[in-house]
Amino acid sequence: MSLSDIVGTPRAAAIAGEHPAPGEGSFDLGNFVLQSGITLREAKLAFKTHGRLNADKSNAIVYPTPYSAHHSDIEWPIGPGKALDPEKYFIIVPDMLGNGLSSSPSNTPPPFDRARFPNVTIQDNVVAQHRLVTEGFGVSRIALVVGWSMGAQQTFQWAASHPDMVTRIAPFCGTARTTPHNLVFLEGIKAALTVDAAWMGGWYEKQPTQGIRAFARVYAGWGFSQPFYKQQLYRQLGFSSLEDFLIGFWERRFLRRDANNLLVMLWSWQHNDLGATPGCGGNLEQALASIRAKALVMAGETDLYFTPQDIEYEASHIPGATFRVIPSVWGHQAGNGLSAVDSAFIDDALKGLLAST
Amino acid sequence: MSLSDIVGTPRAAAIAGEHPAPGEGSFDLGNFVLQSGITLREAKLAFKTHGRLNADKSNAIVYPTPYSAHHSDIEWPIGPGKALDPEKYFIIVPDMLGNGLSSSPSNTPPPFDRARFPNVTIQDNVVAQHRLVTEGFGVSRIALVVGWSMGAQQTFQWAASHPDMVTRIAPFCGTARTTPHNLVFLEGIKAALTVDAAWMGGWYEKQPTQGIRAFARVYAGWGFSQPFYKQQLYRQLGFSSLEDFLIGFWERRFLRRDANNLLVMLWSWQHNDLGATPGCGGNLEQALASIRAKALVMAGETDLYFTPQDIEYEASHIPGATFRVIPSVWGHQAGNGLSAVDSAFIDDALKGLLAST
Repeated sequence: MSLSDIVGTPRAAAIAGEHPAPGEGSFDLGNFVLQSGITLREAKLAFKTHGRLNADKSNAIVYPTPYSAHHSDIEWPIGPGKALDPEKYFIIVPDMLGNGLSSSPSNTPPPFDRARFPNVTIQDNVVAQHRLVTEGFGVSRIALVVGWSMGAQQTFQWAASHPDMVTRIAPFCGTARTTPHNLVFLEGIKAALTVDAAWMGGWYEKQPTQGIRAFARVYAGWGFSQPFYKQQLYRQLGFSSLEDFLIGFWERRFLRRDANNLLVMLWSWQHNDLGATPGCGGNLEQALASIRAKALVMAGETDLYFTPQDIEYEASHIPGATFRVIPSVWGHQAGNGLSAVDSAFIDDALKGLLAST
Repeated sequence: MSLSDIVGTPRAAAIAGEHPAPGEGSFDLGNFVLQSGITLREAKLAFKTHGRLNADKSNAIVYPTPYSAHHSDIEWPIGPGKALDPEKYFIIVPDMLGNGLSSSPSNTPPPFDRARFPNVTIQDNVVAQHRLVTEGFGVSRIALVVGWSMGAQQTFQWAASHPDMVTRIAPFCGTARTTPHNLVFLEGIKAALTVDAAWMGGWYEKQPTQGIRAFARVYAGWGFSQPFYKQQLYRQLGFSSLEDFLIGFWERRFLRRDANNLLVMLWSWQHNDLGATPGCGGNLEQALASIRAKALVMAGETDLYFTPQDIEYEASHIPGATFRVIPSVWGHQAGNGLSAVDSAFIDDALKGLLAST
């Protein structure tokens, strides 16, 4: 048995091959060997499902989490009447390794805990998710893999690793390979966190909160666009001033998280490279060309680190892909469900993709 | 006497009203009252001059320093045959207050030293520079004020504070008022530096080098554009890899500086607002409209914090201003003399401006 701990539903209902009730769960990966060569023992993949798997198991959607998020943080596109409609689809939201719910520095017992938690790749995440989907739910064909930001990275990887299993993909505001500039942005936030002496090389007993706050303040400039700040659109989110937003949105957002977890996911992000998919010879363009899924690739018009130019370039190498720009001044956060207009744009686009064959 | 310490030239030659020989110097500001209300006692304005003041004192150019630079760091547009030709012009390069050569946290005696050094505005800098130019050199009409980045901020302020004194201005890659997003970027680098426990609230005895390195790594993502990094253009600057560039260019750049000095200039930058010019009622557009100088305003096409959009907006409020975009992927650094093509573009534009009447 691989499924356990479905919150609020009988364990029996969550057994592979049954029709699990919606809810949160944790899939036992057992001894999970990572690309790094380290074995994560008793590894767990946390997840949440919405809706029910249909009889022929043809209505599964996989929607992986982005950086630092939990499955509960990204539910804005899920709901009756929305593209990810739980009355039609069985939506699986797997938690990224390192996010604090799946196996992470913060929840792994010694000796692979905290600073010793191994490096995890996007490929590792998709291997784990593939086991959840196939062994856990008995699904062999996925109607859609969709994701924002690091969720988009996992979406590309799903399509390249399992070309015969994924019918459609909709990666948005993310790239199949991390660009050098994006890596530099991440070096900056990493430096801001790790310069805090309280971080102690990852061996802290108390969170290095000043470092996390510095990390958050650096992140703030990258997460939204220049015109977003000029137009004070943070007021639409209930913040009364710029400083109120920097603390109330950004610092709050990352103070909820564990520092080592943030750094593990950051490593996954920095090292994301679809070209490293087995059989692609380290070639990004070849990996993109191998994708067989019907692809809708979207970019935020003012995204500062997953730029429309970079995303369009990658989309141009996926056979038959549609590329669309989300017209928005919300920067990278155009895809995070914060702007009703942007969310409607994405929802409409996803509906169109799901309606197509 | 106001001029002293001209390096390598007799003090007598540097007296106001004479024709000082080219060289470095320091102008005694005496008890200099800042906008904050604090008096900087025995305040100094460091500077360097190139060329010689002509008989009718009509050939002066003022070229203020940008963030963290010394006058020797920005000499790329100065030279025979260049726009800032010392054979034609008397070029004064005043050092910004806080840069370590002019009065700064690092060189001011107690009790206004280090963390107690007062906040300094762009207006304060221009007041000090005006005294150097008028009292020090007896110049009452300036042929051109020109500056990059924070030098551009001082250039705008010169034109608004002294409309009848400044014939031409050429601010490039800088704004007359710091935008909210730019302020957030600066909050990020500030947070990265000050989270270092070795900073000690500014009362360090040894530089907080880890904080300065973190500051530099955050800065790296902002200073050049996304395509600059993708195209590995740092190789043109002699760096062998991205990491070599982050350390060898960025960390080196700021490790040369004092942490408190960096923070004082950062405060000046964050609070820059031409609208605060006396008589302008806090209104940016009114301040820009008051400029009488012939204005050439330039922006870097891929500048991430002084965006072309922001600069064009401001230029549109200056009567008769010409706005030009430097076609470049060097981001903000397009104006720093690193890219020969960009430097030639700027040099040509400055020559055109200087040739015009």
